[in-house]
Amino acid sequence: MAGCCAVLAAFLFEYDTPRIVLIRSRKVGLMNRAVQLLILAYVIGWVFVWEKGYQETDSVVSSVTTKAKGVTVTNTSTLGFRVWDVADYVIPAQEENSLFIMTNMIITMNQTQGFCPELPDKTTVCKSDANCVAGSSGTHSNGIATGRCVLFNGTVKTCEVAAWCPVEDDSHMPKPAFLKAAENFTLLVKNNIWYPKFNFSKRNILPNITTTYLKSCTYDAVTDPFCPIFRLGKIVESAGHSFQDMAIEGGIMGIQINWDCNLDRTSSLCLPSYSFRRLDTRDVDHNVSPGYNFRFAKYYSHLTGAEHRTLIKAYGIRFDIIVFGKAGKFDIIPTMINVGSGLALLGVATVLCDVIVFYCMKKRYYYREKKYKYVEDYEQGLGGEMDQ
Amino acid sequence: MAGCCAVLAAFLFEYDTPRIVLIRSRKVGLMNRAVQLLILAYVIGWVFVWEKGYQETDSVVSSVTTKAKGVTVTNTSTLGFRVWDVADYVIPAQEENSLFIMTNMIITMNQTQGFCPELPDKTTVCKSDANCVAGSSGTHSNGIATGRCVLFNGTVKTCEVAAWCPVEDDSHMPKPAFLKAAENFTLLVKNNIWYPKFNFSKRNILPNITTTYLKSCTYDAVTDPFCPIFRLGKIVESAGHSFQDMAIEGGIMGIQINWDCNLDRTSSLCLPSYSFRRLDTRDVDHNVSPGYNFRFAKYYSHLTGAEHRTLIKAYGIRFDIIVFGKAGKFDIIPTMINVGSGLALLGVATVLCDVIVFYCMKKRYYYREKKYKYVEDYEQGLGGEMDQ
Amino acid sequence: MAGCCAVLAAFLFEYDTPRIVLIRSRKVGLMNRAVQLLILAYVIGWVFVWEKGYQETDSVVSSVTTKAKGVTVTNTSTLGFRVWDVADYVIPAQEENSLFIMTNMIITMNQTQGFCPELPDKTTVCKSDANCVAGSSGTHSNGIATGRCVLFNGTVKTCEVAAWCPVEDDSHMPKPAFLKAAENFTLLVKNNIWYPKFNFSKRNILPNITTTYLKSCTYDAVTDPFCPIFRLGKIVESAGHSFQDMAIEGGIMGIQINWDCNLDRTSSLCLPSYSFRRLDTRDVDHNVSPGYNFRFAKYYSHLTGAEHRTLIKAYGIRFDIIVFGKAGKFDIIPTMINVGSGLALLGVATVLCDVIVFYCMKKRYYYREKKYKYVEDYEQGLGGEMDQ
Repeated sequence: MAGCCAVLAAFLFEYDTPRIVLIRSRKVGLMNRAVQLLILAYVIGWVFVWEKGYQETDSVVSSVTTKAKGVTVTNTSTLGFRVWDVADYVIPAQEENSLFIMTNMIITMNQTQGFCPELPDKTTVCKSDANCVAGSSGTHSNGIATGRCVLFNGTVKTCEVAAWCPVEDDSHMPKPAFLKAAENFTLLVKNNIWYPKFNFSKRNILPNITTTYLKSCTYDAVTDPFCPIFRLGKIVESAGHSFQDMAIEGGIMGIQINWDCNLDRTSSLCLPSYSFRRLDTRDVDHNVSPGYNFRFAKYYSHLTGAEHRTLIKAYGIRFDIIVFGKAGKFDIIPTMINVGSGLALLGVATVLCDVIVFYCMKKRYYYREKKYKYVEDYEQGLGGEMDQ
Repeated sequence: MAGCCAVLAAFLFEYDTPRIVLIRSRKVGLMNRAVQLLILAYVIGWVFVWEKGYQETDSVVSSVTTKAKGVTVTNTSTLGFRVWDVADYVIPAQEENSLFIMTNMIITMNQTQGFCPELPDKTTVCKSDANCVAGSSGTHSNGIATGRCVLFNGTVKTCEVAAWCPVEDDSHMPKPAFLKAAENFTLLVKNNIWYPKFNFSKRNILPNITTTYLKSCTYDAVTDPFCPIFRLGKIVESAGHSFQDMAIEGGIMGIQINWDCNLDRTSSLCLPSYSFRRLDTRDVDHNVSPGYNFRFAKYYSHLTGAEHRTLIKAYGIRFDIIVFGKAGKFDIIPTMINVGSGLALLGVATVLCDVIVFYCMKKRYYYREKKYKYVEDYEQGLGGEMDQ
Repeated sequence: MAGCCAVLAAFLFEYDTPRIVLIRSRKVGLMNRAVQLLILAYVIGWVFVWEKGYQETDSVVSSVTTKAKGVTVTNTSTLGFRVWDVADYVIPAQEENSLFIMTNMIITMNQTQGFCPELPDKTTVCKSDANCVAGSSGTHSNGIATGRCVLFNGTVKTCEVAAWCPVEDDSHMPKPAFLKAAENFTLLVKNNIWYPKFNFSKRNILPNITTTYLKSCTYDAVTDPFCPIFRLGKIVESAGHSFQDMAIEGGIMGIQINWDCNLDRTSSLCLPSYSFRRLDTRDVDHNVSPGYNFRFAKYYSHLTGAEHRTLIKAYGIRFDIIVFGKAGKFDIIPTMINVGSGLALLGVATVLCDVIVFYCMKKRYYYREKKYKYVEDYEQGLGGEMDQ
């Protein structure tokens, strides 16, 4: 018991600090300080100032709503004079983080369930029923083959299919795009972000923006960087593409909103930055279903039960709003981790200099003698005497 | 060769440890231990126990499905007596992480393509055709101006437009909300989460919940914190808003599901926690398209080809299910990083005490003498003699 | 001033390095090196080689488009012979990160607003009007009770409701699934990913894939791991479920695309890896709305204003494309942090050996004497003499 107390006391009342050799030498001294300075500079300057190593980070949680505006008219032989408004060209009416604007279309009206000849291609053209396998259906066929070989037009015969008739002929797509005027439509993006870890939330309609400004402005990287209303044509241009080209086959545009925030500074400095990128990189040698399109139908019926539909293959531009970003705020953990490693790195300075002093300098033996005390395992005497 | 071996042997069979000065002093000793204790306490207590510095973390991958339930009736002059069920007020029928419930609407029936006068506002009211620019179309106009100035009603004349006629008049929105009964509709949220790094997956319908309970329960933060069925009214209240107010102009509610899990403990302790937040912060001075609404149309046609549509401007509440969270599990890397930095920090103790002992205490010269061994660069003799 | 300079000079031109005891002992030496080796091995081998501790990481930003292909026919008493194509079974026509394929359905045709008896169940069956509360509406009821008790069929009487009549009877769902042929439909997934921090983007249609290959291939984990076209049946099988079972009640399949990339190596090694998981874990004792389904309606009307609808309860499989992954690239910060901590850990070696040498070995007193220099706080003399 008493012994134990003694040990404890010894432990508590002792202070152990390493013995140091102080070498008074310009060369070595300066070198040592220089190395230390470098490491210190790195730790403070780079880790802390530049990379904000003292901050805890969190990634963004976001919610987006969009609203398109614009009207245009078309005048074609099939549809005649027709007005297109939001309800017509935005499909579906709403999505969570994206918005599809139809810019081109292949419309097949008054389709009914029935039997009709397939479109002619190398698999469907036939001489006689023998060429058509009943019940078969290829990847690109519009229906199920009946096994009969019928006239497609005066000259060509193709296999008959059970399908929505007449079948869609999407071989020729309108050029220029059917709704090329979409270039001037506008898109309002409302974005509300939240950093759960710091419970910090903000929206892309900044408090200092007036309603009158919002009613009139359109986004411009230079003049109006915080106006959340975008002209479709401008979005595509900013990504380095031509709207009219894109409108024909369709495509996908990413509207990227970056919310990098340093929450150690005032929240008014936490601002969205918009950028635009085309997401469907198209290269000529990978044109399997290039651009972007999908089919949908409007169904019509009569109390008689007779149902018919209008099939629309809609080409258009899907605008995906991609919100990302990191917020940083001072936190003790990362700070300490970096300080700790920094200190450890300072140790390197000594190691480095030791190598130089005790291996490279001509006075090395003299210095070594001072630093080291040799203890032979075997005869004790030596150990003692060798100590200077 | 032999020499090299000798060096290697020397390297292998040598053990170098710093020489230490042991100062037997209550003051210094205690101080030293105290500082060490503090740092140790910080490293262990804060980094490890509190911030779980020994854990590798991963963020959640989630999948959500929703299902609304509820029926209500309305009785208005325009629509007469009408029942509304899920298929009527959920638009679109399904979305990935969100659900829109229509609570209010402006319906414009039997629109057809044609020519009709614009709604009167400061830009559209006209005296003569001279006031109307043919082909022009403002941001808020419903069609393309024909250039004629026609009677809107007995007194007012406005520019005529080519549009879906009659044009929608959304100046007066129904108050109270058309489907105010939506407050009592219920929303079932099924959420399945996955932590790829730990291949841990779980769903918000917990294994210990019985089907009978699920059939009857509705979420309540206190009494039923794990019931995945929410009463719409309650969701909005929990976020501190009034459902009836919100129902009129619409809005966006975030249903946040937080899955913070400590996977070092049993998985049954990994539970979802629900919270609700309004995502469309509305302030009076930023009411550019306040709330949340969008337009969609139902298209009707006749074999004659005559097409008409019912345009609906749907106001409503979009419920975004936002799933987030981090899972932590013991991992050697972060542990070692923290241990390492911790040790490095312990070094600080010595540095601190050294400063005090060798610069502040009155016995400092005496102590220094013990700790330091001065080696002059110039005359060797001195170096040796100064060593005690 | 001069003094200050002297101090500064002293500080600059001094080099302090700890004094070392070099113990020439096989045992201790080897032990020490061994421990150091272990720690070094850990730091280099594990932290750097295995866990890539020298890399900065970033998580993926992704954009997905999907396209389904396939046609089938059904022949039922209610609908007769009918062809189903993409526009019929994909609902809605497009979504951002997922695609719903209808595989089964309960169709209720020609519903009109009106009054009709509820489906019989324990709450709706009635003897007389007394059993029916006017205006009441349960969770599962199809309308608002009128308070009358009417004949449902020859034998059973149920409460009358104001609803879309006739009310849907979803008690019997078709087995096998109505569109069981969906098993052979194919799904093309186009995925474009981006790592903002490294501004690295790539798509899942790899540059070395030819168009002809894309036209013909279907994904197979072994033979075609990079073909982005999936057979629905195969997806479900890969997740260990039966498509035909799943098709009946519906469900949710996760198509997981993992983009783990080491950007220190050539970008052609950054490849997607696909995996499949069923997201609606179904267990018999939690079958509250099992599988996946939703209701939607097609509305029909006549210039008379009479509106009727076809209500469809669509069961089907929703394919969620879940993209995740981390990219790593060399960065100085994490490297230094790890190096720092590594060095600090090396310190542990000395501590460990010290403990053994100075507390466990029989020669410990002799060694201690060499290492330590005892300085008594009280009488100076002793301190000096005790120094060897």
